[in-house]
This record gives sequence, structure tokens and C-alpha cells, in this order.
Amino acid sequence: HDKTAETQQGVASYYSDRFQGRTTASGEPFDQQALTAAHPTLPFGTKVVVTREDNGREVEVLINDRGPYAKGRIIDLSKRAAKALGMLKRGTVPVEISFVR
Amino acid sequence: HDKTAETQQGVASYYSDRFQGRTTASGEPFDQQALTAAHPTLPFGTKVVVTREDNGREVEVLINDRGPYAKGRIIDLSKRAAKALGMLKRGTVPVEISFVR
Repeated sequence: HDKTAETQQGVASYYSDRFQGRTTASGEPFDQQALTAAHPTLPFGTKVVVTREDNGREVEVLINDRGPYAKGRIIDLSKRAAKALGMLKRGTVPVEISFVR
Repeated sequence: HDKTAETQQGVASYYSDRFQGRTTASGEPFDQQALTAAHPTLPFGTKVVVTREDNGREVEVLINDRGPYAKGRIIDLSKRAAKALGMLKRGTVPVEISFVR
């Protein structure tokens, strides 16, 4: 049988350039130009579709790090993923994330 | 003769907990509970007084890292320094920084 997609709602933010090239919790070096993200609990390698709740723009990312660390945030995106959502200037946006465990 | 203090005005922000324990540009491990900060150019070890322009609260920090990376920011503070300025919730505040080269 097919697995059902699960969703979560909350706020997305994106990484500081300070973290570029540093080692993520998965062991991979972090790359702002890759389509990756940090989530508190999903297994590394999980594909997540991130959809802006205010305008429907979406991007798919791979989880390769832990976080976010700020209150109320559910996912931290690479700069490339944040750019795909058009949130670079705003910094944080309400999103729904969807994934299959 | 005495050296004259120089000042700069701009926006201060503070570090993500993601950076806790990571190596700063000076080679020291970063500690959110130390009174340190990142500045683009000041020599490591420079003492800087950071004053909120909106309410006069101030804190002294030692420069031990490079940054900030976000546009318009002039200094990134440790969480302890940001707490001393009462800016944890707000995230960014207008400041004047004062230092002797």
C-alpha cells in the first residue's frame, strides 16, 4: 500500500552565510546552493515539499541537518531553497511542509 | 597622547544557537554565554561598547569573529550580549558601537 504524506504548519527561516561549508548534523558540509534543510526530527535524506501558505510557492528539499533553534520555527532552508520561495528579503514565512516517512 | 574612540552606527543582530561550540574566525570556539561579537574588520581582541540607540542600554564585548553576513548589519552579538541589551525577542536593534583601535 502507498504511504500517506504527513504535513506540519509553522514558520520557515533560512541559514546565515556564516554556516557555509560547515559540517551539518548529517556529516555533510553545508551548501547554501544545494536544496537542503534542517528539521528537528525527520531522518536525514527525507524529501520535504515546502509550500508558502501566503502565496502557494513551493520547493522540494532534502533534510541533512538538525534545527531550527529559534522558537516557532519548523524548518531552516538553504539560501537556494529560500530564494525559490522568494523569502530572502522577508527572512521568515509561514509554510506547510509535506513528507512521507 | 590618548587615542580617540571611533564610532559606527547600524543594526546589531545575534548568533543562532546553531553556531554554539563552532570555531570562530579567530580560532576560539564560539560561546553564546561569553561577551563576544563578530565585526567585519576590527582586530580580534578589540573591546567594543555597543549601545542601543533606542533606549541607551549598553554592553561591552570582545571581537573574536568575522561577520555579520546580512545586509545593513554592523555587528553580530553572542546571546549573552544580546540579552544584556534586551534584544532577544526583537532580534535586531539599531546600535552605535564605540571602540579604540
